[in-house]
Amino acid sequence: MQVICADLEGVFVPEIWINVAEKTGIEELRLTTRDISDYDVLMRKRLAILSENRLTLKYIQDVIATMDPMPGAVAFIEWVRSVSQIIILSDTFEEFARPLMKKLGWPTLLCHSLSIADDGMIADYNLRQQNQKYNAVKALQTLNYRVVAMGDSYNDIQMLKAADHGVLFRPPDNVVAEFPDLPVTRDYDQLKSKLQELLDLED
Amino acid sequence: MQVICADLEGVFVPEIWINVAEKTGIEELRLTTRDISDYDVLMRKRLAILSENRLTLKYIQDVIATMDPMPGAVAFIEWVRSVSQIIILSDTFEEFARPLMKKLGWPTLLCHSLSIADDGMIADYNLRQQNQKYNAVKALQTLNYRVVAMGDSYNDIQMLKAADHGVLFRPPDNVVAEFPDLPVTRDYDQLKSKLQELLDLED
Repeated sequence: MQVICADLEGVFVPEIWINVAEKTGIEELRLTTRDISDYDVLMRKRLAILSENRLTLKYIQDVIATMDPMPGAVAFIEWVRSVSQIIILSDTFEEFARPLMKKLGWPTLLCHSLSIADDGMIADYNLRQQNQKYNAVKALQTLNYRVVAMGDSYNDIQMLKAADHGVLFRPPDNVVAEFPDLPVTRDYDQLKSKLQELLDLED
Repeated sequence: MQVICADLEGVFVPEIWINVAEKTGIEELRLTTRDISDYDVLMRKRLAILSENRLTLKYIQDVIATMDPMPGAVAFIEWVRSVSQIIILSDTFEEFARPLMKKLGWPTLLCHSLSIADDGMIADYNLRQQNQKYNAVKALQTLNYRVVAMGDSYNDIQMLKAADHGVLFRPPDNVVAEFPDLPVTRDYDQLKSKLQELLDLED
């Protein structure tokens, strides 16, 4: 039996922080791990910016609620669920993702969480565990699932390599060059064909 | 962070085999593990009956598609997904469950599968793994999730005991008597209150 594990941002929804930066007009929120490689330093910087601007979780959720899934994402997830199981593995936070998960029809999401202060400000973030995408694939394999994983970037590579089959979706050119063994798909039709091929193989 | 693990039959949908027995008029399909305690013997008997009556998977799926979730189940699952994550752990087969999972809005289902012959008959069944409900709870705990599990009967007890919190839903009296430590809920409002209490505890 198979289960599909998929990244969220860049696969089904746009990058959340970039959209929050655009919609709040706070350019510094565009910073990513390409600019600040230490994730903890980056996240503390982001939370400090939200705090300085007195932006509550509710405000950020309202901003995120104006975002939409990528065109075709909802239909693609509906199709996957009619032929297999899908679990989203993301390094986002459950509280941020919720408005988008609703639009995607609530597929199961394993990610991280936020601590919220009494005044509605984001007090802290909680990484559920290091390497959580990789660990989730390994855990599903102990349950005798064959895992087909798909993602778009560096933070997915461990997951894609641990899976029985890993597939890149709209990866940047440097990722394609660095990991030539991983098949590349560029739209949902290609991804669907690839999954059908992999699911058939395993019947 | 928490994840809810829930049984399927008796919690969100009626008992599938009993409904198949009623709708096909084949009384012998009512047999359960109360009548034949060895599950393998029981399943082989069921598949032999389907084969004798030339009932294909498609026919059985069409019968199952006439079933409906229990009243309130769809709204309850929608609520759970808006506050947490839910994974259904069931000893049914993915091919049987699919028409009902669609009606439930496709929550993730971890269960077993069937082998289908070229003529559409069910050739065999494949248990993905022994004690799969228990193992799934344990696997989620290795991912640093606190697990709240809910189920209605004997085959859920291991899962309920392994979970951080186990809750019985509409259990038969003998199960209540035998496991007095497990809280009992009898409708979705009670179950929702219990879950809210347990989710709050863990914030």
